[in-house]
Amino acid sequence: MPKQVDHQARRTQIADALVRVAAEQGLEAVSLRHVAAAADVSTGMVQHYFRTKDEMMGFAMAVVRERNQERITGRMSRLGPEPGPRELLRTLIAGVLPLDDESRAYGRVALAFLAYTAVRPAAGDPLRKDTEELLGFVTDLIRAGGKASDPAGAAAGLLAVMEGLGVHLLAGHFTPERAIGALDTHLDLLFP
Amino acid sequence: MPKQVDHQARRTQIADALVRVAAEQGLEAVSLRHVAAAADVSTGMVQHYFRTKDEMMGFAMAVVRERNQERITGRMSRLGPEPGPRELLRTLIAGVLPLDDESRAYGRVALAFLAYTAVRPAAGDPLRKDTEELLGFVTDLIRAGGKASDPAGAAAGLLAVMEGLGVHLLAGHFTPERAIGALDTHLDLLFP
Repeated sequence: MPKQVDHQARRTQIADALVRVAAEQGLEAVSLRHVAAAADVSTGMVQHYFRTKDEMMGFAMAVVRERNQERITGRMSRLGPEPGPRELLRTLIAGVLPLDDESRAYGRVALAFLAYTAVRPAAGDPLRKDTEELLGFVTDLIRAGGKASDPAGAAAGLLAVMEGLGVHLLAGHFTPERAIGALDTHLDLLFP
Repeated sequence: MPKQVDHQARRTQIADALVRVAAEQGLEAVSLRHVAAAADVSTGMVQHYFRTKDEMMGFAMAVVRERNQERITGRMSRLGPEPGPRELLRTLIAGVLPLDDESRAYGRVALAFLAYTAVRPAAGDPLRKDTEELLGFVTDLIRAGGKASDPAGAAAGLLAVMEGLGVHLLAGHFTPERAIGALDTHLDLLFP
């Protein structure tokens, strides 16, 4: 197997194990040893990807970001020709929300990461950059809809809705039906 | 000192120490020993309030809920005679958001608790009941505003905005100005 492919396959194997263990036990409780056992590799191999807790948290979050991006890009590309801004935003947000087993696992990792960085701000830098980019993208789509008087404020509100529905879903406060209903009600307000 | 007062004073002392240590180091990282040292009492005294990690998490969340309720009830009672639904909702949400040191400490504890219960659903039962009650209260206020076509859906969306702005503030993604701006933009949509 060529070296590059081998590296990519190993990374995927370890990333899968990390997300799986974190989704079951909580990211904070996960150790290097846990992940090695779940991935069926040596602890030395796992250490190649992260040596410290900070690195493990960062690696887990990077994996979740990548996979969410793939999910959403795939769904958006299947929307048909020239989807409108509302349709794009709904696809984006529903794709991130923890509504099935896979996205629930990702959501648990993301929530653990947020709680971790809330007391260690430096560890959250990559996520802050992502949020800025996403905010710009959402602002442009809301502006394209042409109904909001304050597109940037409305975009920040919509990202808050996404994050908050995710938290309420993960905590079992909202059913998937209630969360999707609240999202549609909110989009009705933004795109009347 | 009468026994009841003594108990209440001790509880407050330990609750303060727990919230302080959790806000600095993360709730998951906090041990009984940490809290005892910060409260300047014996570990046996702390064990009287919680013996297990689950009990500690539950105690911390109960303290945060109580204090938030006091903060918000106080602010609402100072709003003057017959405040409108929009004013009440803004006061409620701005009172919960982590915008100052005190509410930031509470927010960090709440976020850690949510991440903890996302992988241990049973531990989150009390919070689920609270959310239902809050949802009913917010639905009534939105209905009283008389503009929303789906008050329950709009209430779920508004609670999501509150939760999501809290997360984005704690993670340092949003400044206080941006969060309050997004809240006001959202209230403008609900109460046009």
